[in-house]
Amino acid sequence: MSPSVVTNGDVAAFTMAPVAGRVASVYSEVQTSRIDHALPLPSVLRNPFKIVDGPPSSAAGNPDEIAKLFPNLFGQPSAMLVPNEADSIRSDQKLKIGVVLSGGQAPGGHNVLSGIFDYLQDRAKGSILYGFRGGPAGIMKCKYVELTADYIYPYRNQGGFDMICSGRDKIETPEQFKQAEETAVKLDLDGLVVIGGDDSNTNACLLAENFRGKNVKTRVIGCPKTIDGDLKCKEVPTSFGFDTACKIYAEMIGNVMIDARSTGKYYHFVRLMGRAASHITLECALQTHPNITIIGEEVAAKKLTLKNVTDYIVDVICKRAELDYNYGVILIPEGLIDFIPEVQHLIAELNEILAHDIVDENGLWKKKLTVQSLNLFDFLPQAIQEQLMLERDPHGNVQVAKIETEKMLIQMVETELENRKQKGSYKGHFKGQSHFFGYEGRCGLPTNFDASYCYALGYAAGVLLHSGKTGLISSVGNLDAPVEEWTVGGTALTSLMDVERRHGKFKPVIKKAMVELEGAPFKKFASMREEWALKNCYISPGPIQFVGPSSNAVNHTLLLELGAQA
Amino acid sequence: MSPSVVTNGDVAAFTMAPVAGRVASVYSEVQTSRIDHALPLPSVLRNPFKIVDGPPSSAAGNPDEIAKLFPNLFGQPSAMLVPNEADSIRSDQKLKIGVVLSGGQAPGGHNVLSGIFDYLQDRAKGSILYGFRGGPAGIMKCKYVELTADYIYPYRNQGGFDMICSGRDKIETPEQFKQAEETAVKLDLDGLVVIGGDDSNTNACLLAENFRGKNVKTRVIGCPKTIDGDLKCKEVPTSFGFDTACKIYAEMIGNVMIDARSTGKYYHFVRLMGRAASHITLECALQTHPNITIIGEEVAAKKLTLKNVTDYIVDVICKRAELDYNYGVILIPEGLIDFIPEVQHLIAELNEILAHDIVDENGLWKKKLTVQSLNLFDFLPQAIQEQLMLERDPHGNVQVAKIETEKMLIQMVETELENRKQKGSYKGHFKGQSHFFGYEGRCGLPTNFDASYCYALGYAAGVLLHSGKTGLISSVGNLDAPVEEWTVGGTALTSLMDVERRHGKFKPVIKKAMVELEGAPFKKFASMREEWALKNCYISPGPIQFVGPSSNAVNHTLLLELGAQA
Repeated sequence: MSPSVVTNGDVAAFTMAPVAGRVASVYSEVQTSRIDHALPLPSVLRNPFKIVDGPPSSAAGNPDEIAKLFPNLFGQPSAMLVPNEADSIRSDQKLKIGVVLSGGQAPGGHNVLSGIFDYLQDRAKGSILYGFRGGPAGIMKCKYVELTADYIYPYRNQGGFDMICSGRDKIETPEQFKQAEETAVKLDLDGLVVIGGDDSNTNACLLAENFRGKNVKTRVIGCPKTIDGDLKCKEVPTSFGFDTACKIYAEMIGNVMIDARSTGKYYHFVRLMGRAASHITLECALQTHPNITIIGEEVAAKKLTLKNVTDYIVDVICKRAELDYNYGVILIPEGLIDFIPEVQHLIAELNEILAHDIVDENGLWKKKLTVQSLNLFDFLPQAIQEQLMLERDPHGNVQVAKIETEKMLIQMVETELENRKQKGSYKGHFKGQSHFFGYEGRCGLPTNFDASYCYALGYAAGVLLHSGKTGLISSVGNLDAPVEEWTVGGTALTSLMDVERRHGKFKPVIKKAMVELEGAPFKKFASMREEWALKNCYISPGPIQFVGPSSNAVNHTLLLELGAQA
Repeated sequence: MSPSVVTNGDVAAFTMAPVAGRVASVYSEVQTSRIDHALPLPSVLRNPFKIVDGPPSSAAGNPDEIAKLFPNLFGQPSAMLVPNEADSIRSDQKLKIGVVLSGGQAPGGHNVLSGIFDYLQDRAKGSILYGFRGGPAGIMKCKYVELTADYIYPYRNQGGFDMICSGRDKIETPEQFKQAEETAVKLDLDGLVVIGGDDSNTNACLLAENFRGKNVKTRVIGCPKTIDGDLKCKEVPTSFGFDTACKIYAEMIGNVMIDARSTGKYYHFVRLMGRAASHITLECALQTHPNITIIGEEVAAKKLTLKNVTDYIVDVICKRAELDYNYGVILIPEGLIDFIPEVQHLIAELNEILAHDIVDENGLWKKKLTVQSLNLFDFLPQAIQEQLMLERDPHGNVQVAKIETEKMLIQMVETELENRKQKGSYKGHFKGQSHFFGYEGRCGLPTNFDASYCYALGYAAGVLLHSGKTGLISSVGNLDAPVEEWTVGGTALTSLMDVERRHGKFKPVIKKAMVELEGAPFKKFASMREEWALKNCYISPGPIQFVGPSSNAVNHTLLLELGAQA
């Protein structure tokens, strides 16, 4: 552990922390015990090291376009820390570093900040760390707080982003880049750490390119954050927060499973946060073994309709009824609807009709729908039909995000089971219970894994900035090994990028990592789901433990992807 | 710990457990670690003891009527175990005991069964324990399983009721009593342990009275179970499951609080399970310090209207907006609506109108409502109005239980905030997020407290049956002390009873213990809520820990009621 870190300090001493910050004296026992949890560092960071550059990098796609968009940064090598006889970075250099949290909360964010801070204390004594408040807007408006040891201390190993808060603004327009530049110059920043998801890291790279192009000295390093788990690649095996969020959801799912089995009369439909990709749903399935799991990427790949999905669920329910199991647990990703092409078509047509036509009570307007969309509309439960027609956003568009997919599925399943009952092919009884697990998982106390991973990511970001790097994403690897064996480096952000055509222009993007149907996690799930459907193989992970044998377990997705689990 | 219990055994050895039972080989690490968690016993149970009877008992109310209803049992003394030079119970006597789980799940139920079993192994070797399947129906239908060491072992310290499952049937009619009697005779039962809430324990006492009256030897002992915490009295300081359920909900609430503070833009409306009493909501408030907490008993005592409740919430939101806090967390008991007299009147009138009149589209039917009910109906959000009119139970009645109170309140708060915005008295911005925490809490892994408490309750039930007692409820006290100092005994169930007049007859009831507005837990809450409303004193309890300093914490309600916390 870093020698500069205050540990086992008297918590009461910190009740004088700034008003805006946390006061550790109102902490729960578990929160308090976590403050003093010792954070291990990879051994390469605990000893003298040097930085070794790799070969020139390319891009994830369309390298020529990426090269044009990043003339100063394209082709940068990735960097890797290796043990050395003496430190290669001058430790007498003082730095001014800014840090910003961007986008939705993810457990562990505070430890990234602690990691940066401790690096500066350990290896660049006298440096200053500024925390920009409220996300990228804080950079543009130059709203910041100086992060001192006392200020940071109560947030060690704590959930949430409230040390400096986050925001969803983007630095995009020339005017906004100018504002960021002004702040960088005003604060004389040597570096900026951007903690965020795919968009925010793309933004970080654009900022790095912009600073470099304008000869502003400020260097920019990204950190991979998102509970959704969709920012990852070979060099960045996972995004922080995913591990904790999945374990919190899995605890609840496991409890609900035992309840289902004890009561014997409910089907629990659990919608899980994660709109773009279904990693969370897949990981929770691997942890808990539900009867049915819908993976959005599979639905999209197989071009399934809502009717197909409903029938799949109903088929399993009917088979289970024959075994006298009239209960079960079903996991559904939040973004399911977005994966179903026919739903997208319907929504588009509805938006068009609602914008231009009168919706008459007799339903004549429906004639404007294509046959496929009309069939789907009629298949939807009445409550959902009404929701689609009545609740619209300020632009008059249908609000897809507001649809409670789990409730919609319960109603469609009910209807189909009623049909089958009439035909005599179903004799069970069905009661659906709906759940949405989302906000509970974004700000929990980070698991030991996320706590250590974030601390290493932050510490590494400090190293990279100190050694003059820019446009890299902090990369900590070998994550299936003990922390001391983790590898540390930085990956060229341009190497993760491709372009997308938007409004006639190429835009750089880090492609979201979707659930790969040929990947180890999905294949493991697919090989077991039939057994899980009919037998009850429920596993209840229980609450996250911070000490004891289970406290250092890592999520299945990561272990399977690293080949460390069969 | 009981010497007869298999501990630290090879889990794999239990994969041959009966098909219907659990297979510990598919347990999570935390589940597995809990199986071997050593269960401490109060020292009085670990050493020779004798049973001392107290003075004759009376009833909680109307003792004359209770005496008539329980001619054989009324006036029974309570029993208390005290240390003795030698055991007063013959240990060579073999017993045949049945056990049944009645009503909703509560964490710890399996440990009551383990406690009974271990008692029989320890002190009445060769005894048989039958588990009746699926609740009281299992007694009436004589559906049971013999509980062996191998069968019980994987359920030690595990959540759920799935070892033998539960049910909500009641043994009420003469025919049903006859069936129970037949089972008791057929299995030659010396005793029966009924694990349940207020109704089930009333039932247990009726059964005890019935057996005694008919000279059936089977004795009956009750055990206090319910997460709602509304079965308690001086001798039975708490019902099991309450501690665990509250801690599970408080974990989630704490996470949502940190999320609210990090995001700064949502008001989270959290509805908590517990229809009859608001103990869970109150306990969660004491654990987490939300900005607003609605306690049903206070709403009823102050005869508040739905408008009053809405205004209270809106007032706090407005004051917080002036402090630039446009976020917060609000706790609402599941049963809130049942505590509001005007809502009850409206429902009664609607049921009457829906049964006898035509509901015309022009709303003429509304003229049949009283002015007060009409005003309330018009005050309700449209979605709730429609729900009341359209969704009815098989008897045609309005389904109050289906109303999602938290969503209703969000809509009413939105409307009122809009009014105030128009008037210029509110300048903030409001976004509500709704949550219901219920099923997640009923089957979690029991806390160390619930695990030990249940084990002692079960062990004590064994003692009471073995010593010939009937019509008592297992009573474990001094719960704020370490387990070894807990007191053990049995309380006459008739002493907890009062009568209610139903269908022209007196019915015995154990009155539900409601939140006392003069009790220590409510008073502590009331003394702090104003501070919590405007300052952000959030506490995040974090996940339940099974080892370490926080693992033996007991809930605030119990400690405050015992005077062990200020």
